[in-house]
This record gives sequence, C-alpha cells and structure tokens, in this order.
Amino acid sequence: MIKNYESNGRFSRLVTAGGFAFLSGVTARNRDAGIAAQTENVLAQIDAYLEKAASHKDKMVSVNIWLKDIADIGAMNEVWMAWITPGHEPARATVESRLATPDLLVEIMVQAMI
Amino acid sequence: MIKNYESNGRFSRLVTAGGFAFLSGVTARNRDAGIAAQTENVLAQIDAYLEKAASHKDKMVSVNIWLKDIADIGAMNEVWMAWITPGHEPARATVESRLATPDLLVEIMVQAMI
Amino acid sequence: MIKNYESNGRFSRLVTAGGFAFLSGVTARNRDAGIAAQTENVLAQIDAYLEKAASHKDKMVSVNIWLKDIADIGAMNEVWMAWITPGHEPARATVESRLATPDLLVEIMVQAMI
Repeated sequence: MIKNYESNGRFSRLVTAGGFAFLSGVTARNRDAGIAAQTENVLAQIDAYLEKAASHKDKMVSVNIWLKDIADIGAMNEVWMAWITPGHEPARATVESRLATPDLLVEIMVQAMI
Repeated sequence: MIKNYESNGRFSRLVTAGGFAFLSGVTARNRDAGIAAQTENVLAQIDAYLEKAASHKDKMVSVNIWLKDIADIGAMNEVWMAWITPGHEPARATVESRLATPDLLVEIMVQAMI
Repeated sequence: MIKNYESNGRFSRLVTAGGFAFLSGVTARNRDAGIAAQTENVLAQIDAYLEKAASHKDKMVSVNIWLKDIADIGAMNEVWMAWITPGHEPARATVESRLATPDLLVEIMVQAMI
C-alpha cells in the first residue's frame, strides 16, 4: 500500500500511499545555473517522478516552493506558468529559506493524486 | 475528482481531491496592518475558502504558518486561539520565513477534511 | 472520523483523519542540547506520537524538516539515518528557518499512513 521509490537512506524521492504521490523536495542538478534554468530543471525532474507514480502535473494538489531569495519569485513564476496547465494549478505556498547548499536557488515539494 | 477553484495561472486558491481540501498559502489583503489585523484577515479568508469546499475550520487536519518575524508568534497565536474551536485544533508548524512581499507578516496554508 | 490528540488551544500534537496521521512540528525538550541530541529527542517523540496513532515510522509518507542553521544538516542526517528503516524513507524536504525560540535547532513535521 505504501511504495517507496529511489530511497537513499535519508529520504525516498517518491512515496505513493492512500491514492496520493508524495515527492521529496526537488532541487536543481544544474546548481551553477540561474533561477530560471534551475526551475526548469526542477520541473523536468518533477514530471519524471509524477510519471513514475502514474500521476501527472495536472493532478498536483498541493505544492511548497522555497526560494533562497524571495526576490526570485517573478523569474521562478515565469518558468512555472509556462509549465503549468491552466485550470490545473495546485494549491501553493512560496516562501524564502536557505537550502541545503548555497548554490541551490529553488526547492519544490509536490503532492499529487495518482 | 480533482476540483480547482480560483486558478490564476500560478496556483489555485483551493483544490479539493481525495476527500481533502488543500488551500494555498493565504496572506493578508490589509498589507499595511500589523500582525494581529493581518492574522484576522487571513483567518477570515480561510473561513471563506473552507466554506467553498464544504469544509470548516473544525475539520482542519494540518496547518503551516510562516511568520516574517518569529517574534510575532505570541500576537499571532492570540488571534488564532480566539478563532479556533477547542478540541478541534489541527496539527501545526510555525516557522520564520520572508514572504512574497516585505509588507506581508504572516502566511497560513491549510489542509482540511471535507 | 477526525480525531484530535493532546490539543492545547493552539494545535493538536496529533490528528488522525482519512487514513493518515498528521503530527504537529515537533521540537526538542532538551533545548540546551546540540543538534544531535535535539534530533534524537525529536525522533523519540515522533515514535511515541506515531504509536498513539497506531502508525509507525515505516509508514511515514512525507516529512518537513526545518533547521535553525542549515549547516547542521549533516549532523541531523546522521541521527536520522540511524533511526530510519532502509527502504521505508519518507518523502522529505529540509530547509532553514528560525524556530519558535532561539534555542530550538530543529523542528520535524510528519505525515504517515495509519
């Protein structure tokens, strides 16, 4: 009933349970890039995890976004809005927090229906 | 099965799915007010979104609160405690984060049962 | 259907609803201790709340961790990894935020299946 994907001792990249997909906070692999390219990289990873869960970005229900610098919210939103399907936006909260390493500018955590 | 309310391209103010209501992080419309008045405004908006979902504050299960200044926790709690129904308090975490604009002092994100 | 445990006017330490257990953000009781001892104390409290919910750490689905200083992530992870059951890691996000009082170094919020 609970399935854990890509577990690494600290967290699972994806957990499915109770009809929902729970993703870990996703950060960019292109850590030397700016906010737009980091956001694009994060969203591409989220697409892949949601596909693995037999879910889809249109089925996201709630999303938390952390920005290293809240001043990046406009640039992050531009990439986000190009990705999202109108009418299928999740509930969302975006706040500022320092992330695991100083080069990380954005972290996104998704809950979706399967 | 998933219903999105008041979508604006970036997020939906409310999503209902799987028996739950997921609200976006709510911030105050009276942005020039102090922490008490901002909290009152946020909680009134939450009441309205929960009603739209056929839910109620007594059915909240989990809440995240972000304060621009954690020193405001006492003043925020005073308003919160006047609003909450004893015995129906949700699980909750309250931490400090800078919010989307500098005048915002509090953001509250709610998950409730329908 | 919704059960609230250890309510104190501000929050419930534990809420069970819809097949899930929602825990409030847990902070250490040994507030003068370092990050390792605070993390151990928090995880022991989480074990107890999960038992009260007829759940278990192996059934955690999603976890939020806030560190007062993100530089503590390695020391926190060491304690976390000794506690977690390999293959049952939850989805997780870890970010930096100041917590309710200056002596608190870590806060952990858990959602689990029952």
